[in-house]
Amino acid sequence: MKSYWFIFCKTDLVLELTSEGYSIPLGEECPVELKAWSQVMQVAAMEDGIKVKAVNIEMPVTNNPKYEMCGLRNSYYKLSTELYLKAGKCQELLYWNRNTQFCGVCGSPMKMDTEISKRCTNCGKEVWPQLATAIIVLVHRGDEVLLVRAHNFKDNHYGLVSGFVETGETLEQTVHYEVMEETGITINNIRYFGSQPWPYPCGIMIGFNADYVEGEIHLQRSELSKGSWFTKDNLPLLPEKLSIARMLIDDWLEQEQDKK
Amino acid sequence: MKSYWFIFCKTDLVLELTSEGYSIPLGEECPVELKAWSQVMQVAAMEDGIKVKAVNIEMPVTNNPKYEMCGLRNSYYKLSTELYLKAGKCQELLYWNRNTQFCGVCGSPMKMDTEISKRCTNCGKEVWPQLATAIIVLVHRGDEVLLVRAHNFKDNHYGLVSGFVETGETLEQTVHYEVMEETGITINNIRYFGSQPWPYPCGIMIGFNADYVEGEIHLQRSELSKGSWFTKDNLPLLPEKLSIARMLIDDWLEQEQDKK
Repeated sequence: MKSYWFIFCKTDLVLELTSEGYSIPLGEECPVELKAWSQVMQVAAMEDGIKVKAVNIEMPVTNNPKYEMCGLRNSYYKLSTELYLKAGKCQELLYWNRNTQFCGVCGSPMKMDTEISKRCTNCGKEVWPQLATAIIVLVHRGDEVLLVRAHNFKDNHYGLVSGFVETGETLEQTVHYEVMEETGITINNIRYFGSQPWPYPCGIMIGFNADYVEGEIHLQRSELSKGSWFTKDNLPLLPEKLSIARMLIDDWLEQEQDKK
Repeated sequence: MKSYWFIFCKTDLVLELTSEGYSIPLGEECPVELKAWSQVMQVAAMEDGIKVKAVNIEMPVTNNPKYEMCGLRNSYYKLSTELYLKAGKCQELLYWNRNTQFCGVCGSPMKMDTEISKRCTNCGKEVWPQLATAIIVLVHRGDEVLLVRAHNFKDNHYGLVSGFVETGETLEQTVHYEVMEETGITINNIRYFGSQPWPYPCGIMIGFNADYVEGEIHLQRSELSKGSWFTKDNLPLLPEKLSIARMLIDDWLEQEQDKK
């Protein structure tokens, strides 16, 4: 039976060049030679029932014109949405697999138990893939929004305030804390927008809108290099289309258009 | 300098009996004798600046009339909300600490790096406390709601459909899947309600309302023993006041009252 093979070398994915564009290799065997110690993971099947396998390789595939290496993020622009989302899930499971070779409780080897759980061969401790849950928030002030640049952004775009949810916090508390910590301003009227799997490396982003209350912007210099208020007419370079940050901004822009 | 001491024996917490009721022991030293190998964790301070420490003990405190052992859930009814929430956070950090003694990548001992991160002494892998993110949903059909009984509920109450978010899913997809998987019905119009830290043992619950579309109830027998539609006049035993499940139900009941 044929399976889709999601083959990752670090964060790059093997894409197959077809007459219609890009796809994921489909076949009975992995199209790339694997090592004796390679761990092939079974992943939940596609909507149409085609099986899914995921594996890490150590060297990129560069000697075959049929295949091309592509960063997971860029694959969003080359694959169908279903294949892109499945690629993200495969990447998260491979990441989880690499990080759970040994038991955190006793240090003994872990073994796959079900498709999505492992058990310790010594103490029996069970583990499942973990998600890092993060919030991201678009703060509004009249017809302006707050956009910021983090040091770790790769290009010149501005994004939104975001941060990981810590134990003991509600999502709304995290939104308040992160905006205060990163920019020094207070907000209220926090409104849920939506959520998005974020496999970089493994997590979920939960998006909110919120309203400015008071305070001058004082950037947290360890995290951010820039940050200010923008109207729709003076926007900087925006986040990629694939991100919930961009969806929040686009949603706001649509509402601004409708005001005309 | 005095600290609050959150002392856990398994899932039971040491409460101090005071003239005003219950509190958490406050002092410079831990009021319970610790072992040489006990790991005292520093936790984020209280709002008023009082420091917080957390530690596990192996035997409950039973020989001192000043102290009482209390399950974390029951402590909700005895402590201030701030102390209850902090107790949950302490429990989660202790759980995380026990489960990250060894590195998942290479099996070597982990060492505390900051208050909320550890680093492997061999390969340098860094870990942070992980949250399990779960959804919980109140499904509406006219003036009825869907309530279910899970096998693992401790008393006779009915609760709501819930489940963990898996990698690669949006929260809304998880809501759809869990309702379909546990009861066989389809829903739409999923509306965010709120979120709640859920330290049992470590996680966050994200609550939604949704509307029934179609299907007869077919319970997933491995998870649920009962499930049906209830109006406000024939309600079964409801979940505890401390839970977001109950907040969703109470919110619906208020709206039903307002309809009169």
